[in-house]
Amino acid sequence: MDSLTIQQNFERIRSNKVFEIGVVSVIITSALLVGVKTYELQPTSQMLLGWLDLLITAIFLAEITVRFVAEPEKGRFFKKGWNIFDSLVVAVSLIPIDNSELVLVARLVRVFRVLRMISIIPELRMLLASLIKALPQLGYVILLMFIIFYIYAAIGATLFESINPVLWGDISISMLTLFRVMTFEDWTDVMYETMAVYPLSWIFYLTFIFFTAFAFLNMVIGIVVTVMNDEHEKMLQLEAAQHPEPTLQELKDQLTRLEAMLEAQQRSS
Amino acid sequence: MDSLTIQQNFERIRSNKVFEIGVVSVIITSALLVGVKTYELQPTSQMLLGWLDLLITAIFLAEITVRFVAEPEKGRFFKKGWNIFDSLVVAVSLIPIDNSELVLVARLVRVFRVLRMISIIPELRMLLASLIKALPQLGYVILLMFIIFYIYAAIGATLFESINPVLWGDISISMLTLFRVMTFEDWTDVMYETMAVYPLSWIFYLTFIFFTAFAFLNMVIGIVVTVMNDEHEKMLQLEAAQHPEPTLQELKDQLTRLEAMLEAQQRSS
Amino acid sequence: MDSLTIQQNFERIRSNKVFEIGVVSVIITSALLVGVKTYELQPTSQMLLGWLDLLITAIFLAEITVRFVAEPEKGRFFKKGWNIFDSLVVAVSLIPIDNSELVLVARLVRVFRVLRMISIIPELRMLLASLIKALPQLGYVILLMFIIFYIYAAIGATLFESINPVLWGDISISMLTLFRVMTFEDWTDVMYETMAVYPLSWIFYLTFIFFTAFAFLNMVIGIVVTVMNDEHEKMLQLEAAQHPEPTLQELKDQLTRLEAMLEAQQRSS
Amino acid sequence: MDSLTIQQNFERIRSNKVFEIGVVSVIITSALLVGVKTYELQPTSQMLLGWLDLLITAIFLAEITVRFVAEPEKGRFFKKGWNIFDSLVVAVSLIPIDNSELVLVARLVRVFRVLRMISIIPELRMLLASLIKALPQLGYVILLMFIIFYIYAAIGATLFESINPVLWGDISISMLTLFRVMTFEDWTDVMYETMAVYPLSWIFYLTFIFFTAFAFLNMVIGIVVTVMNDEHEKMLQLEAAQHPEPTLQELKDQLTRLEAMLEAQQRSS
Repeated sequence: MDSLTIQQNFERIRSNKVFEIGVVSVIITSALLVGVKTYELQPTSQMLLGWLDLLITAIFLAEITVRFVAEPEKGRFFKKGWNIFDSLVVAVSLIPIDNSELVLVARLVRVFRVLRMISIIPELRMLLASLIKALPQLGYVILLMFIIFYIYAAIGATLFESINPVLWGDISISMLTLFRVMTFEDWTDVMYETMAVYPLSWIFYLTFIFFTAFAFLNMVIGIVVTVMNDEHEKMLQLEAAQHPEPTLQELKDQLTRLEAMLEAQQRSS
Repeated sequence: MDSLTIQQNFERIRSNKVFEIGVVSVIITSALLVGVKTYELQPTSQMLLGWLDLLITAIFLAEITVRFVAEPEKGRFFKKGWNIFDSLVVAVSLIPIDNSELVLVARLVRVFRVLRMISIIPELRMLLASLIKALPQLGYVILLMFIIFYIYAAIGATLFESINPVLWGDISISMLTLFRVMTFEDWTDVMYETMAVYPLSWIFYLTFIFFTAFAFLNMVIGIVVTVMNDEHEKMLQLEAAQHPEPTLQELKDQLTRLEAMLEAQQRSS
Repeated sequence: MDSLTIQQNFERIRSNKVFEIGVVSVIITSALLVGVKTYELQPTSQMLLGWLDLLITAIFLAEITVRFVAEPEKGRFFKKGWNIFDSLVVAVSLIPIDNSELVLVARLVRVFRVLRMISIIPELRMLLASLIKALPQLGYVILLMFIIFYIYAAIGATLFESINPVLWGDISISMLTLFRVMTFEDWTDVMYETMAVYPLSWIFYLTFIFFTAFAFLNMVIGIVVTVMNDEHEKMLQLEAAQHPEPTLQELKDQLTRLEAMLEAQQRSS
Repeated sequence: MDSLTIQQNFERIRSNKVFEIGVVSVIITSALLVGVKTYELQPTSQMLLGWLDLLITAIFLAEITVRFVAEPEKGRFFKKGWNIFDSLVVAVSLIPIDNSELVLVARLVRVFRVLRMISIIPELRMLLASLIKALPQLGYVILLMFIIFYIYAAIGATLFESINPVLWGDISISMLTLFRVMTFEDWTDVMYETMAVYPLSWIFYLTFIFFTAFAFLNMVIGIVVTVMNDEHEKMLQLEAAQHPEPTLQELKDQLTRLEAMLEAQQRSS
């Protein structure tokens, strides 16, 4: 039994329906485990969960080994983002933790195992990929919005710091306060406080709300238009593939040939 | 007078305009009754409403009997969701209730009679059907959103439980708290509380808001695109049906025939 | 000078640019007056405003008289909604008011003079007309939403009345509370209060939010799709008017004629 | 070295990659400086920042001089909005300030230097231009919304002033309160207060919310439709440019020529 056979054997295991369903159920169990751990538990249940946790880590390790060995070209394995993510989650789970401080970190790492649900369901992976693909084209709108936030935060921190340093202490706190204003969360309380000192400060808040709402609207429209055009393009291509109609150019060429034939006829007669 | 005649007689009753208007007005009365009962009432009015309630139950029973007998194939009657719903509502109304605890349940069942307004107005039934049809294609976005909620709730319950167990006690309470954050309802109070212990916890809230807002946006766009394409498709089909223009393929075939004729002519001459 | 000449004279006045600008400035003055009156005023200013008010009423009366006399067919004058509205506003302004209670009503009537700005600017009138035109097609969605509100309000008034009669006292107060929940205004306070008695009542709020949000979304999409299709239709018609291309049917007819000619040729040769 | 050569030399400097990157980094430094100044600083750091500030002002002055001299036609320089903006920011920075009151103003002027990031990045400039271009077509919707606000504020100030003069004191304060109601910010507190005196005042708030939400919706749809149509137009033009298909008119003309030839043939034979 040579190395090639092992790879092929493991590839067959990986493609096995039972193996796939098994992995999905272990991932779901691991996700449920993460939820169960947030409840108050008896010591016996806690110990049981500890063992279950170890078992899941072992299965994940086995699964990733199968997937790695099954890969014909080992180099390509770590080029896929999800493989790196899966390996990292398993690797961190393997680090033995005794310190009580790190126990919290270990629990948080286990939370990210839930993300494996995305890596295992192709539709979710596609959905996420399309979300990420839409991000860069919004880059400049996000930059513009950041500049608006930055300018208003600088003005706010300069004018309102003496009124309420908790909200307007420095530029980063001011940006958080402005984000709060953008979500309309008790924004009038923030405004009335500064209006007591600067009666015209409502201009600051209203212009900020208009600018950010307008920029946000533009962002949304940007996504909608892009998605719509993509859909329209796809639909056109699908239509073209289903009903391969002759182009007008083909008709024109045929007509030109007819014309030439008739002309030849006329010349000959 | 045989069974067939009864069925046909009842079918004629069911299709009768007076019968239809009568049923609609009884349903509206029953809906108003549900509303009136929530007000403080004098004993005499209450007794009157009790009698009215009984009368409505009797009419509903009669109506459903008419509809059932009028159905030529009895088996198909219970295959329509609305028929089952109507029968259930009437059946539950018929159960005699003495226990004061169950009186509340009986009143709630009567509330669902209002839903009969949807079953009786075809446009509302169509609207609801189209809403339900749009749901499955959003399935994966909802799943993705649930995973985002689950992960953030697990992190929140792990880190913030000691800060405020009322909001972050376990994963289900944490998910409710996160839903509250998503609706921007006093979310800064929740944030400021945890920021007192973990100053960087604003990252938790801001990334959560961005992820859910982004996913939600995607969901909305998903519906819009689907609805738009459906409308576009419908419009194209309508256009095609109204103006049956010859296809380019037909023109090309005709041109090919012409060419063949001319070639035959040339060969013969 | 006969009746016909008066009508024609008044029609010339009505179409006069100076008259039009004069009316617009009087309307704007009347709108400003409404605003100024909400401030604390000295007795002298108040008296001045009283006189200005009388003057504006007089001018409005004169203007509407001009417009009425200028109308060739008197019957059609009161068929236009805006004319009736203008006449009503002027008529109510003319009623002498001494009672202090009615002074408030008189002031409110003057507020509606601001609406004359809409009647005088054609673009605003068109905008409003398009808004009103979009309403009926949303009728069924609004009805569906009302039914959702009604059912949830009936359930809320039945279950939660004993918890907080101020919010859930009867069905109309419950509907107002639910509208508040729909706008996410302190909705968690409402929910936490009922969750103390019925721990599962979060289901009530979450399903309500989902249903109304979903119905609202559907409404928005309904408008967007209608507006889009209208725009698309308009654009197609515009395109068709600008570039009158021959239809495929015309081309086919021409080809058929050619074919017939060639066939005739072949038969004759 | 004559004036022309100086201009050409400066033009070469302006187009230099090193010069461009230098200017961008100075602008970013100046933006960071604005942020840093909002933090509590030690006297030494503050002095250092003062010097850095002077240096940046000097560089900005130099840069604008280079850009001005590099311009072949001096008159056109001040026709570009961004040039005027840059010059103004530099000019105001140069005014020596001793008075402590004006120090605040001077700091605010420096904040606007951050806006130079928009002027220097072409994509942001284009984005802003498209945002500004979309504004006028919304002019009438904004006017309509202002009229709605004005009328409701006038009614509110008339009826509710005695209830709460802080919220409904005069028409401008009432408009601010209504803006708050529109953002759903603690709007029920405002409503419950007036409902204690006028139990039917919920009609005032609900109609206001419906009107503004509806008008806002219309505004958003207006932008979406305009942007979509623009995109659609662009796509059609792009398509037409990439695949120059013969028009149906060309085909028809060719067919007409064929027909004429065949007719000539028939007549001659």
